[in-house]
Amino acid sequence: MENSLGKLFTITSFGESHGRCVGTIIDGCPAGLAITEEDIQKEVDKRKPGVSMAATKRAEEDKVEILAGIFNGRTTGAPIGLVIWNRDIDSSEYEKTRFLLRPGHADYTAFMKYGGFNDFRGGGRFSGRITASFVMAGAIAKKLLNLIGIEVLAHTIEIGGVKAEPRGFDQIRENIDKNPVKCADLKAAEAMAKAIETVKEEGDSIGGIIEGIALNVPVGLGEPVFDTLDGDLTKALFAIPAVKGVEFGSGFSAASKRGSENNDLFTIRNGKIVTVTNNAGGILGGISNGMPIVVRVAIKPTSSIAKSQPTVNIKDMKNASLTVEGRHDVCIVPRAVPVVESMIAVTLGDLAMRAGLIPRVIK
Amino acid sequence: MENSLGKLFTITSFGESHGRCVGTIIDGCPAGLAITEEDIQKEVDKRKPGVSMAATKRAEEDKVEILAGIFNGRTTGAPIGLVIWNRDIDSSEYEKTRFLLRPGHADYTAFMKYGGFNDFRGGGRFSGRITASFVMAGAIAKKLLNLIGIEVLAHTIEIGGVKAEPRGFDQIRENIDKNPVKCADLKAAEAMAKAIETVKEEGDSIGGIIEGIALNVPVGLGEPVFDTLDGDLTKALFAIPAVKGVEFGSGFSAASKRGSENNDLFTIRNGKIVTVTNNAGGILGGISNGMPIVVRVAIKPTSSIAKSQPTVNIKDMKNASLTVEGRHDVCIVPRAVPVVESMIAVTLGDLAMRAGLIPRVIK
Amino acid sequence: MENSLGKLFTITSFGESHGRCVGTIIDGCPAGLAITEEDIQKEVDKRKPGVSMAATKRAEEDKVEILAGIFNGRTTGAPIGLVIWNRDIDSSEYEKTRFLLRPGHADYTAFMKYGGFNDFRGGGRFSGRITASFVMAGAIAKKLLNLIGIEVLAHTIEIGGVKAEPRGFDQIRENIDKNPVKCADLKAAEAMAKAIETVKEEGDSIGGIIEGIALNVPVGLGEPVFDTLDGDLTKALFAIPAVKGVEFGSGFSAASKRGSENNDLFTIRNGKIVTVTNNAGGILGGISNGMPIVVRVAIKPTSSIAKSQPTVNIKDMKNASLTVEGRHDVCIVPRAVPVVESMIAVTLGDLAMRAGLIPRVIK
Amino acid sequence: MENSLGKLFTITSFGESHGRCVGTIIDGCPAGLAITEEDIQKEVDKRKPGVSMAATKRAEEDKVEILAGIFNGRTTGAPIGLVIWNRDIDSSEYEKTRFLLRPGHADYTAFMKYGGFNDFRGGGRFSGRITASFVMAGAIAKKLLNLIGIEVLAHTIEIGGVKAEPRGFDQIRENIDKNPVKCADLKAAEAMAKAIETVKEEGDSIGGIIEGIALNVPVGLGEPVFDTLDGDLTKALFAIPAVKGVEFGSGFSAASKRGSENNDLFTIRNGKIVTVTNNAGGILGGISNGMPIVVRVAIKPTSSIAKSQPTVNIKDMKNASLTVEGRHDVCIVPRAVPVVESMIAVTLGDLAMRAGLIPRVIK
Repeated sequence: MENSLGKLFTITSFGESHGRCVGTIIDGCPAGLAITEEDIQKEVDKRKPGVSMAATKRAEEDKVEILAGIFNGRTTGAPIGLVIWNRDIDSSEYEKTRFLLRPGHADYTAFMKYGGFNDFRGGGRFSGRITASFVMAGAIAKKLLNLIGIEVLAHTIEIGGVKAEPRGFDQIRENIDKNPVKCADLKAAEAMAKAIETVKEEGDSIGGIIEGIALNVPVGLGEPVFDTLDGDLTKALFAIPAVKGVEFGSGFSAASKRGSENNDLFTIRNGKIVTVTNNAGGILGGISNGMPIVVRVAIKPTSSIAKSQPTVNIKDMKNASLTVEGRHDVCIVPRAVPVVESMIAVTLGDLAMRAGLIPRVIK
Repeated sequence: MENSLGKLFTITSFGESHGRCVGTIIDGCPAGLAITEEDIQKEVDKRKPGVSMAATKRAEEDKVEILAGIFNGRTTGAPIGLVIWNRDIDSSEYEKTRFLLRPGHADYTAFMKYGGFNDFRGGGRFSGRITASFVMAGAIAKKLLNLIGIEVLAHTIEIGGVKAEPRGFDQIRENIDKNPVKCADLKAAEAMAKAIETVKEEGDSIGGIIEGIALNVPVGLGEPVFDTLDGDLTKALFAIPAVKGVEFGSGFSAASKRGSENNDLFTIRNGKIVTVTNNAGGILGGISNGMPIVVRVAIKPTSSIAKSQPTVNIKDMKNASLTVEGRHDVCIVPRAVPVVESMIAVTLGDLAMRAGLIPRVIK
Repeated sequence: MENSLGKLFTITSFGESHGRCVGTIIDGCPAGLAITEEDIQKEVDKRKPGVSMAATKRAEEDKVEILAGIFNGRTTGAPIGLVIWNRDIDSSEYEKTRFLLRPGHADYTAFMKYGGFNDFRGGGRFSGRITASFVMAGAIAKKLLNLIGIEVLAHTIEIGGVKAEPRGFDQIRENIDKNPVKCADLKAAEAMAKAIETVKEEGDSIGGIIEGIALNVPVGLGEPVFDTLDGDLTKALFAIPAVKGVEFGSGFSAASKRGSENNDLFTIRNGKIVTVTNNAGGILGGISNGMPIVVRVAIKPTSSIAKSQPTVNIKDMKNASLTVEGRHDVCIVPRAVPVVESMIAVTLGDLAMRAGLIPRVIK
Repeated sequence: MENSLGKLFTITSFGESHGRCVGTIIDGCPAGLAITEEDIQKEVDKRKPGVSMAATKRAEEDKVEILAGIFNGRTTGAPIGLVIWNRDIDSSEYEKTRFLLRPGHADYTAFMKYGGFNDFRGGGRFSGRITASFVMAGAIAKKLLNLIGIEVLAHTIEIGGVKAEPRGFDQIRENIDKNPVKCADLKAAEAMAKAIETVKEEGDSIGGIIEGIALNVPVGLGEPVFDTLDGDLTKALFAIPAVKGVEFGSGFSAASKRGSENNDLFTIRNGKIVTVTNNAGGILGGISNGMPIVVRVAIKPTSSIAKSQPTVNIKDMKNASLTVEGRHDVCIVPRAVPVVESMIAVTLGDLAMRAGLIPRVIK
């Protein structure tokens, strides 16, 4: 079940970068949810390489197809099958460098774990392309969350050392699609784009930080002690290649704060209990507390770089050197933004169902 | 199954802070593993309040009892039942302040999720005391990992803003039990102890950062795309109360690095493939790469502080103020160190079994 | 997780026949459910050896203790821990015959699977005594099912070839506790008791058939295609030692019927859709159809018999002979009746939660 | 996860009878296993309507396509995706009778459970066609089991009251493909074929009994107390539509036997421990004992019959009558034979992996 996630709303990912397709099976989705291919396509399109120089040159149009579980525009209660066929595939480059371990990639670990039988072309199961299967699932999860008013957002807050100024939720919602790096601070966005341009010229790559937000999450999502909201979110986020750290609310900065400073005080506002600050990032004891969920995700610089790197040829066990040709993004942060959104959505969808907040049939 | 973790080596936690006991069931442990109550006691004792002023005054001796699954000193293949009876329980303070939501704690979320039926005494299931059940499981997992040579360590690297200088594995192993804050840099340890002293006098609290390390982990632990080594470790670590962030290797700092800088280059050393650096923290594509696993965990300052804090009385829905009396640690970081070790151990134990590296019967 | 059953209402069994205890952890039970030790004790007492000559002479009083998860008489949403301490233990007989494989028992398979490390005393985990852990879980499940009006019953319909005449639900409910064999046909009950007496004198044993019934089950329990109501019930029932077959409704007799005869015709009664007959045993397509669930369970004759039997000594791999001394029931059917009830109850409890029919908090 | 089965070797079924396809995802299959589309096609072809008059007239050729997880003829360790496209679809009949509940079918329970959103065409997820997804999984499982010498067989032993004489394993293996009803007793096979012919003329249907056998199963498959070999097999078998009972070894007949008669005595043969008889059907204490696994499965008569039957129109809640037109088998027993084989194979595959008998990489 290593390719399945979630206990009631379960997604199963399959497919490879250079195989026939990338797909998702969603099991446990309530019957009666209105879903069209367009709903899913819209989310998948957010993963598209932008106008930006940041993105891979892979040209194919990722067209979503519904294989099962949706009938007359609504979910049936049966497993939903979704697929994107791979079209624009050139694997020749990968054949040539098959045994040269690309630094930062899973080539070595996959080779060892699967005895060399893994589909190495384009990274196979370890390609960023697999996240298209996550985004398809996220599209369904978002529709489900809409039913109870939950909104999921993500935006870039740092690229290559350029940090965005904090922005309100309205501005985030409004600005992220106005610029290729999906940053709500439009000025920082320009600097980020410039940083990407520079690094591209140098044949190098950069990373960044994405912030995910969930609004209107009711109190009660999360099933401690192990299936905590933070724990489940984090596990889902680490399925995204290149993620190296996750923090909630004040996160790592909490380590150097005083309790009196970090504690979010409770108060009553409009007859409801809220906290004055949100250092908890919306989670107390592994359970949502009604405040916005705020999670930050560190994305490492793209492992594929145009520079030559020393490495090892695993076939003859000799040192070698490698220049990664192929297609790759100089900075995957912008394209990872919708993937972060999706992993948050599928996790919240599962936990909302487990909390009994979503009926088994949507009328 | 929200209180169970792991797919082949599964731990189930039960019990409450002020109930009859804290316990663990371990299912799927191979038969024939030599285990004594002393093995487990030794690990549980590491959670004891130290000589330090940092620790709670709760006096009870946490004595481990084996209830099931171990016969003639060896595991039988049946589920292992372990329990620590609660002895020194004074719940009167909690009765008095039952409806006053302690800032930073799970009082509010637990009340809402469980309709007020949760055992609120001492935080119930949300108490740090529950981590004793994790440590019992960790003790068994460590014995299992020993069979294949894996060693798990954790140490304090930051408390209240005081940062430790990096130390080698040998020094970490040697120094952590020499000081009450479990820091390998003995000079920083003193400063940390002083910081705790100061904050205690001020009626406040502080947090810190713990680094977990696993040595001699073979290549191949982790089951992508969802049950990744990093994802599973993180989920397990977020079960520890007060954790607000987790990062691997270069972690959040990777966000501002270049690919050429962050990539760990492969080379051959003693006939084996290794990486020259370890920015990956021992994990590539969600799978261990044979280098040390390095994970850092941000611990927020203890939520219980001696200062008066504004809050809400959830019974009458009025603003109120609260001074947390009871027993609590000013800084839980040192006591969380063995818990971090334990969660790493149970995760690696499960993934080692899933990777087929541990036989079903230990001869 | 091999000792856990159920996906939302999950029971975990632990303990051994001659170890310290037999116990159960129940995870996922809604908060607020009123439970007392007496509620559970009452169900466990049904497993007691009756007045009947059928039962083991093991004298101990099985006293239920709540370890966790119940506070002020109600479930808290935390895992429920239940235990029965073993008291009357004489393992000497088992030590003597340790390597003599008892025909019909799990001695051989357990020895091989667990490398001889299994607790062999009294059959260890394979003892009928383990079913006490099922019955404790069943007691909680029954309380849960009561909330939505579901009633679970079981009764003996055959022992040693003596078959009971069919009886209505009222008579079954009324008569099963009036006779030591738990048969609703009181005349057949006498003949069954006599059959047990006879076989006991001969140093032999007999089996029988138990029928389980669930009334007022709403339409919709069961999660096809794999977690069907019949599949999940059957898997749960096969956890009871000595079960060799399970059938629903017309069961094996359906194999020789015509479709026109076996199909249950739909009609409207009191404004509700019902079936005229119940050959389906209340299940269509793996989902409850609102009719009574009817399942029959074949119980083999007790494997322990007073007669000498040829067997093998697994230590020296030589043929040997064995007379099982120890304590054992000549016919376990009557004592298995409450166990069948319990396994039906835990399965329905889980599926009722999965169908969204039981709230997460009971007010 | 209701459409997933197995813990290490997991199959997920998707698709509908009259939707775009029927498919399977297999997760956890070891890398390096040689698999071709032909291997899978061969098994799927066994489900084909035979020469026999027993079978549906649905003409489509079920052509297996591999979508993922197999590369250069070997499994890669990634999830395997398999699909059969639906071609010959005429749903008009089903549209007309949409609200008329077919007796014996899941129309009523599915309508109620999924709020009428279920894909009703041809029974949707409840169609026998879904078993094609089981057979694809079974084909992979059989390849896996071959590695450790396990052979799985199934054959018809009763149809419409006609019982086959017992036959040896060699004769079963040899004869089942020699006759359209897959019966090893060729004389009985003729009578069965005749019985089908008769009942077809009468516009009625009949059921039967299938016996499944697994040979060369090593001691140790099965994970008690809940994931027993018999329990897991049974749960898998109840996923097959029309199954109403399952028994192992002496099964229901054990209920009227003496212990001295039903116990299988141990003895040593060729230096190995075996039992003299096999009333246990190869399973003791939920674990395989090295003897042949023998399981019998009761199949009810096909619910779709050509005769007019009284029923209910669920839209207007009025009594109505229905003659099932469409395509259907008069007796599905022969076509269920490979499905029984497949469910046995996937269960044994999962339990063999869980017992540690199959490596993670096949060299």
